[in-house]
Amino acid sequence: MIIDVHGHYTTAPPSLQAFRDQQLQRLSEGPYSPSVGPSISDERLRESIESNQLSVMLDRGIDVVLISPKASGMEHHVESDEVAVEWAQVNNDLIARICDLFPRAFAPVCQLPQTPRGGLQHAVRELRRCVEELGFVGCNLNPDPSGRWETVSMTDERWFPVYEALCELDVPAMIHVSSSCNPASHTLGAHYLHADTAVFMQLLEGDLFARFPDLRFVIPHGGGAVPYHWGRFEGLAERLGRPPLAEHLLQNVFFDTCVYHQPGMRLLFEVVPHANLLFASEMLGAVRGTDPATGSGWDDTRRYVDGLDIDDAARVTVTSDNALRVYPRLADRVGMSPR
Amino acid sequence: MIIDVHGHYTTAPPSLQAFRDQQLQRLSEGPYSPSVGPSISDERLRESIESNQLSVMLDRGIDVVLISPKASGMEHHVESDEVAVEWAQVNNDLIARICDLFPRAFAPVCQLPQTPRGGLQHAVRELRRCVEELGFVGCNLNPDPSGRWETVSMTDERWFPVYEALCELDVPAMIHVSSSCNPASHTLGAHYLHADTAVFMQLLEGDLFARFPDLRFVIPHGGGAVPYHWGRFEGLAERLGRPPLAEHLLQNVFFDTCVYHQPGMRLLFEVVPHANLLFASEMLGAVRGTDPATGSGWDDTRRYVDGLDIDDAARVTVTSDNALRVYPRLADRVGMSPR
Repeated sequence: MIIDVHGHYTTAPPSLQAFRDQQLQRLSEGPYSPSVGPSISDERLRESIESNQLSVMLDRGIDVVLISPKASGMEHHVESDEVAVEWAQVNNDLIARICDLFPRAFAPVCQLPQTPRGGLQHAVRELRRCVEELGFVGCNLNPDPSGRWETVSMTDERWFPVYEALCELDVPAMIHVSSSCNPASHTLGAHYLHADTAVFMQLLEGDLFARFPDLRFVIPHGGGAVPYHWGRFEGLAERLGRPPLAEHLLQNVFFDTCVYHQPGMRLLFEVVPHANLLFASEMLGAVRGTDPATGSGWDDTRRYVDGLDIDDAARVTVTSDNALRVYPRLADRVGMSPR
Repeated sequence: MIIDVHGHYTTAPPSLQAFRDQQLQRLSEGPYSPSVGPSISDERLRESIESNQLSVMLDRGIDVVLISPKASGMEHHVESDEVAVEWAQVNNDLIARICDLFPRAFAPVCQLPQTPRGGLQHAVRELRRCVEELGFVGCNLNPDPSGRWETVSMTDERWFPVYEALCELDVPAMIHVSSSCNPASHTLGAHYLHADTAVFMQLLEGDLFARFPDLRFVIPHGGGAVPYHWGRFEGLAERLGRPPLAEHLLQNVFFDTCVYHQPGMRLLFEVVPHANLLFASEMLGAVRGTDPATGSGWDDTRRYVDGLDIDDAARVTVTSDNALRVYPRLADRVGMSPR
């Protein structure tokens, strides 16, 4: 069984974006009051998945995708708790419905209602609703709601209420920013990779997992720049008087495999212990075209994993066992026991 | 001959930092007036190099280092043209003296007087002084003087006066930020790598080299996250309707080899054409410790290059020929012709 832990619902019918546009319009007009969410029939929902994510999964032999709302659409930079809560609920409810329509193919991961300066009580409440009432298996946590990196380290205690809930519910968080609000830092080509790298460095500097030994973070996009600069981070850890990376962070931090060429994937598997790698392709995500050199999709990460000189046990570890271990609620959904 | 294009004078006597502290103190007290720079004797200067950079060079068999002022010390976020100009001159004059004291071992690269919101006329003037009067072979250009990424793309026309001077003088710019002003983005473990990556993406989005076909940028730290995510950037280029990377950028963009472990160096040489790689170690820089697994310095990049399965011609290309080609004024200083 091949489990992909990083998929997004980037193919919603236009009425979802129309609802978002209306939301922002109403917010600009004065005190905000919630409205009725977009009306999307089961048939439209089914179509939007069948011809996109599901079709790609069948092509590539991916059995299960952990699907969450479009990351760049979370837009946590909007300063309104009401808007953030409503937008997260609307998106998460769509994800729940998709997973009910395709219960064997998808497992749900939620967006949290965050804002740049607000507290995290709404995020905790939505996380509980999604996990306890709707059976979600994980969440996306945005380390920079501002979209311009006006934020605090993820080791800061302002994040602790979310961490307490994550530990209690036994679900991991994928550390995933939303759109960049800074045109000098491109959303897909700089901001995402910076977030992945910066959060790893925050964790290196701090000692978060001594306080939350059961907390689990998945860093997407192959860990940003981290695996490529593993020696740099080991050296920085030493220079800063921190423990070696494996001892300090690798009980709690995992990387996905969203690296879109063979040499990058080879490096990732060579540098990071296989126990810390979760198969993923971020589809339909940042990069949707076809590599002219191979005729396959850039984001067809299964091809790069298949192209590695590793044994079958390692492949099973990365493509399914680790996902079942890091996302323990996933086993019930896909009818398998965690190993 | 082994040429290292990325060295910093990070070992200055304490009087340099004392001068800087006084500068900022005087700035805080009202209208700024320049003062006398720090007094550092030739003997002190010589000592500060002999026991540090030069000793490391001898150990590792590096013949020439392109040395520039400490990057994190440039501190372009200070909003004062007078302070920026004075501080750049003081630092560049020290670099010039070091290169006069050790004319076979070092070639000078300058810091430019930039500020977050100021124009670039002072930077152009200092660049001309350094290259035309003092024989500098290159400069460091900070793509984010603010230190918190409040900046414009390097394809914006506000940068053009510098580019015109660089082309006229026939010197390249290393794209190098200074200290991070954002504690959530660590200077050495996130901010530097983000800058490298973000600028590459800015160049990918734009068409700067159509306007400046002779402009040459060196992106340090092994290109940030770019080589590891080469497929992502190729895919983004296609999605954004930009030409393939090699055609669009690789006549003008070069990466240094500051990657501190063998797998990272292997990836860099596998992904980026050798014509675009410049040997460097960034010493004494971000990472100064010793890898306990090998007993060698993390930043002993020569060891990783020597550990590659490449032929001698490729090694010569990366360790000397490319430097002489990208920095044409270097040949005169080290008594070699560019090839």
